[in-house]
Amino acid sequence: MEGSPPPASPAGLSAYVAVSQLLGLTLLATTGAWLGRYRGGVAWHGHLQFNVHPLCMVLGMVFLQGDALLVYRVFRHEAKRSTKALHALLHGLALVIALVGIVAVFESHRAKGIPNMYSLHSWCGMAAFVLYLLQWLLGCGFFLLPGASFSLRSRYKPLHVFLGIALLALSIAACLLGITEMLLFNISDSYSRFVPEGVLANTLGVLLVAFGLVVGYVLTRDDWKCPPLAEELALSMDFKTLTEGESPGGGSQ
Amino acid sequence: MEGSPPPASPAGLSAYVAVSQLLGLTLLATTGAWLGRYRGGVAWHGHLQFNVHPLCMVLGMVFLQGDALLVYRVFRHEAKRSTKALHALLHGLALVIALVGIVAVFESHRAKGIPNMYSLHSWCGMAAFVLYLLQWLLGCGFFLLPGASFSLRSRYKPLHVFLGIALLALSIAACLLGITEMLLFNISDSYSRFVPEGVLANTLGVLLVAFGLVVGYVLTRDDWKCPPLAEELALSMDFKTLTEGESPGGGSQ
Repeated sequence: MEGSPPPASPAGLSAYVAVSQLLGLTLLATTGAWLGRYRGGVAWHGHLQFNVHPLCMVLGMVFLQGDALLVYRVFRHEAKRSTKALHALLHGLALVIALVGIVAVFESHRAKGIPNMYSLHSWCGMAAFVLYLLQWLLGCGFFLLPGASFSLRSRYKPLHVFLGIALLALSIAACLLGITEMLLFNISDSYSRFVPEGVLANTLGVLLVAFGLVVGYVLTRDDWKCPPLAEELALSMDFKTLTEGESPGGGSQ
Repeated sequence: MEGSPPPASPAGLSAYVAVSQLLGLTLLATTGAWLGRYRGGVAWHGHLQFNVHPLCMVLGMVFLQGDALLVYRVFRHEAKRSTKALHALLHGLALVIALVGIVAVFESHRAKGIPNMYSLHSWCGMAAFVLYLLQWLLGCGFFLLPGASFSLRSRYKPLHVFLGIALLALSIAACLLGITEMLLFNISDSYSRFVPEGVLANTLGVLLVAFGLVVGYVLTRDDWKCPPLAEELALSMDFKTLTEGESPGGGSQ
C-alpha cells in the first residue's frame, strides 16, 4: 500500500473522530471532577484508594479501549504493520491501567471488610476485563506473531472485530452500573432530590453512552472502513513476509 | 426476488437464532421468577404495580425489540414488503408494551410519593424509549409510507440500521441499571452475602448481555446479511410500485 498515493480521508470522518476525542477528554474531566469535588479525591493509600477504581476504569476500559479501536480509521494511510502495533499497544496500556483499577478496588474492599464480586457491576466488569484480556492475547497471537495460518486469521478476524466493539459496549455498561452503585451507596438519601453530585454523575453516564455511540458509528459505517479486499491483502502480505513462503490463498478452506 | 429460486440459509444462522430465542425466553422466565418468588408477583393495582415495569421493559425493549431486528435474517426468503411490515409491527408492539411499563412505574411512584427521572437508570431508559419511538416513526415514514425519495431512503438506511442495534444495546444497559437499582433498594443489607435473590437477578443481567451479544452477532455478521445490492434494489422496487414513476437511480445524489 505504501507505493500507491494515499487516498483522501472520507468526508466527515475527521469531525466524528474529533467529537469522540472531545467526549473522551470530557468524560475523564467529569470523572475527575466528581471524585475531586464530592468524593475527597484520589490516593493509592488510605480511604481514598477506592477512587482509583472509577478513574482507571474510565481511562483504560473506555477511553483508551475506544481509541485503540479507532486507530484503523484515523491512521488509514500509515503502514498496516505500524497501525497494528499501535492498536495492540493502546489495548495493552488500557489493560494495565484497568488492572491497576481492579487491584485498587480489591485492596480497598479488603481494608474495609467488604466482600468482592457479589454485584452485577462486578460480574459485568470482570467479564469485560477477562474477555478483553483474552481478546488481546488472541489478537497478538493471531495478528502480531508469526505462526497462525492465513486461513485461521481470516476466520478469526470478523469475530475479533465484533468482539472488540461488543466489549467496549459491555465496558461502558459496567461503568454505568458502577456509577449507579456509587451513588446509591453514598447519596441514597439525597439522590432523588437532584443534588449536584447525582446530576454530575448521571451526566458522566450520558457522556459514556455518547462516547460509545460516536466510536461505534465511526467503526461500523461502511464507507469509512478500509476496502476489505485491500485490507485482507495487506494482512496476508504482512504475514507472508513474516512467515515466509506461505501463499495468501493457500491456507483458505 | 420472488421469481428466482430462494438461496439456502447460511450455515449456522438458524442455530444462532435458536440460541437467541432460547435466551430470550429464559430471560423472560427469569424475570417472572424473580418478581414472583421474591417481589410478591405482578398486579396493575396496588403495591405490586411497580413490578409491571421490569416485566414490560424486558419483554418490550429487549426481547421484542431484538426479535424485530432479527426478522430480516430469519425471513430472508419472504417477500421484502411482508418482512418490512413484520419488522414495523414487532417494534410497534414493543413500544406499546414498553409504554405500559413506563406508565406502571410513574403511577407506582406517584402512589408512593417517589420522585421521577432522577436516576441514571431513568435517564438512560427514557432516552432509549424516546429515541426508539422516534426511530420507529422515522422508519415508518421513510420505508413504509410512500413519499420519501430513493436518495433520502438510501442515505437514512445505514443510520437506521446502526441506531437499531445501538438502541438495543442502550435498552439492555438500562435494564442492567434497573436490576442494580432494584437490588440496592430492596436487599442492600444482604446482597453482598450472595443471597439467592441477588444471584438470580445478577443471572438475569448476564442473560440480558448474552441475548444482546447473540442478536448483535447475527445482525452484524457480514456473510449473514442479505446481499446489499439485491436488498437496495428490492427496496427501490417496493417504493417504485408505491410512488409510481420514480426511477430507482433517479433520486440518488
